[in-house]
Amino acid sequence: MITLDPGNISDYISDSEVEESLPGAIRALDSLVNRKGRGSEMLGWLDLPSVPAESTGRLEEEGERVREECDCLVVTGIGGSYLGARAAIEALCEEAEFPVYFAGNNLSSLYHSRLLHKLQDRRFAVCVISKSGTTTETAIAFRLLKELIREQDDPRSSERIIAITDPRKGALRKLAEEIGITVFDIPRDVGGRFSILSPVGLLPCAVAGIPVEEMLEGAADALEEYTRKADSNIMLLYALTRHLLQAKGIAVEVLSTFQPEMNQFCEWWKQLAGESEGKEGGGLFPASTVMTTDLHSLGQLLQEGRRNILETFLISNKPCRELIVPEEEENLDNLNYLAGKSLGQINRKAYEGTRDAHISGKIPVLSLEIPSITPRAMGELFIFFELAVSVSGRMAGINPFDQPGVEEYKKRMFRLLEKPGV
Amino acid sequence: MITLDPGNISDYISDSEVEESLPGAIRALDSLVNRKGRGSEMLGWLDLPSVPAESTGRLEEEGERVREECDCLVVTGIGGSYLGARAAIEALCEEAEFPVYFAGNNLSSLYHSRLLHKLQDRRFAVCVISKSGTTTETAIAFRLLKELIREQDDPRSSERIIAITDPRKGALRKLAEEIGITVFDIPRDVGGRFSILSPVGLLPCAVAGIPVEEMLEGAADALEEYTRKADSNIMLLYALTRHLLQAKGIAVEVLSTFQPEMNQFCEWWKQLAGESEGKEGGGLFPASTVMTTDLHSLGQLLQEGRRNILETFLISNKPCRELIVPEEEENLDNLNYLAGKSLGQINRKAYEGTRDAHISGKIPVLSLEIPSITPRAMGELFIFFELAVSVSGRMAGINPFDQPGVEEYKKRMFRLLEKPGV
Repeated sequence: MITLDPGNISDYISDSEVEESLPGAIRALDSLVNRKGRGSEMLGWLDLPSVPAESTGRLEEEGERVREECDCLVVTGIGGSYLGARAAIEALCEEAEFPVYFAGNNLSSLYHSRLLHKLQDRRFAVCVISKSGTTTETAIAFRLLKELIREQDDPRSSERIIAITDPRKGALRKLAEEIGITVFDIPRDVGGRFSILSPVGLLPCAVAGIPVEEMLEGAADALEEYTRKADSNIMLLYALTRHLLQAKGIAVEVLSTFQPEMNQFCEWWKQLAGESEGKEGGGLFPASTVMTTDLHSLGQLLQEGRRNILETFLISNKPCRELIVPEEEENLDNLNYLAGKSLGQINRKAYEGTRDAHISGKIPVLSLEIPSITPRAMGELFIFFELAVSVSGRMAGINPFDQPGVEEYKKRMFRLLEKPGV
Repeated sequence: MITLDPGNISDYISDSEVEESLPGAIRALDSLVNRKGRGSEMLGWLDLPSVPAESTGRLEEEGERVREECDCLVVTGIGGSYLGARAAIEALCEEAEFPVYFAGNNLSSLYHSRLLHKLQDRRFAVCVISKSGTTTETAIAFRLLKELIREQDDPRSSERIIAITDPRKGALRKLAEEIGITVFDIPRDVGGRFSILSPVGLLPCAVAGIPVEEMLEGAADALEEYTRKADSNIMLLYALTRHLLQAKGIAVEVLSTFQPEMNQFCEWWKQLAGESEGKEGGGLFPASTVMTTDLHSLGQLLQEGRRNILETFLISNKPCRELIVPEEEENLDNLNYLAGKSLGQINRKAYEGTRDAHISGKIPVLSLEIPSITPRAMGELFIFFELAVSVSGRMAGINPFDQPGVEEYKKRMFRLLEKPGV
């Protein structure tokens, strides 16, 4: 399971402050578990870890079919309709095994023409993900991909499209009924950023070869562990720390990983935190760093800049072929003291050195650690953070499950594009 | 040239405030031009755009040689020793043309073993970049790459290594002298984050096929334009805006692009801004978004979250084969109103809609726009931002050209790794 190292948090939040606000955190958690409070109609994500085995089986079968019949997968979706899958796939999969590409998450010609070029001569599958089926970015990319499939003149082309959409209505549901493509449901009570453990996240993962059953098991265990009310509940401690530090002037939370393959997980987290809490004039600005890369970029500011940052280290390891620093007789670079050591060992010391440096630089730091990056652990992390932002959001008195502000740019864009009826 | 759209800045900074602080901005600029003030020993970057033609010629010849003799390039460096080159190459080059990889910018076994695997059977060139030659991350990756070259048993292996390092001393200089590899100088009065227009950035660009002469021409024009003291100097207006907004409680500056290929440019900018200004308890936290992707992630928070953000749009276009939205008879997705329109046109409207939405959401926004992403324009942007952070850093009274805080994690890491003499 995840462990929490509270770092120097006690320098910023006293024991009595924790004690005083713990009941509030527990109340927030209770309201979630009992499906009450603002936004409680969107709490279906709490049921996802215990999805029946036959549903998982169907996902895994479909995954296997696609792997057998196609060369690669194009996940077509934006925001919550791709970030979770991408996070899990980058963390867990080897690029070479079964390539997964992402389309429809921007409006760039260059991006999409490069992708279409790559797909030209391949039997690619498309997993199109959109509740309504009319999300602009996704629908545009889907049209382009369908056009390419038509050009490829494949008699079994409809077998290459999988739709994940609303259980009853919308453009994709209609298309599925008309041309008979495979379709999976997005539960109506699950918002995009909480959908990784629904078919939205699980189907792409299954195609990529991730044992989704294990991911769900990890999530189920985490759900049990982190909905306990004991004061050793580290999810509550993390949620409460974020909440209290905000009141003390912290403006930015930086999620720092030392594993580049966790970069996309940080992107998933940024949506989760930013979209859940960035409303009614509140919310921490979520940022992320990949170390040690960014120690040579944002390191100076983290060490000595404005003290308005909470740094949350997300520490993990990934079992892989370890590289060993070679010995060199000449030792011009003075590196022989590391010869025979693995990069993993050195990276670990870099983390410890960084944590200590940032503590001495007087920014609040805490660490969340998993023993290794596995499907189980990813499931745990997804639930851990989903619960944590829900609790701190509830403590702040906002609805963590809506996103009214996202419509604003769309409204104006539609008007500028002269969309009929807008 | 770059144009500045001041957006809604006048809602946050009055004309009289601009007038009052303009003399300070001009003084800061003067101090740079006259090579005075804190950190003036590190102002060599102001000379880089006017580097003599024979130097550029040597870079371009070397670039051509590497392209002819090798399959790909591995740029080995961290921080300022790779971010600028990577920014230019991602913005300007086609992946397929001549692959450029990056090593030594982290301590990940997984990252480096994947890279080494990819290089196994290829005649790769290594461009190793480090002033001292003993930067831990870079030196480790360089040892691993040298080991692979030895295993490949290439009689002309030394021709595959190019060092960019201190003009007189250090491990790489020594190595170059001993085994006779090609070597280029890092000017002693240029810091890492200001080194893109030195061989540090230009050599990798030349290998990648970018006409570096054009990039330097753009930089030279920008240097002339933005060191003029007129109050129409948009660099001064941008620098001054950042400075004044900080005093008014703005904590985060978000650089927002609508072109995914500019993502690495934003990473270059984050180091430039964060490392130059994040000191003595000050500095804006630099973050970036790639739109429309992040409108479905950070969009909610930008629209309705805490009002402590300055958003700087970096608007550009890239001449490329434009994709056109296809017509579909059924029009299930209601997208036919866009049929025949190019993605570029739609993306532009997305930007305009977003800017208007964020203005209505009451965050200060301004836009910097270049007509298209060319080598010239990239040169302009590099100088524009280098000057701007130097001016706003000088206005804040700090030394924008040092980075004392970066040593802190290293010291502690070395101690934990039991480095001799530490």
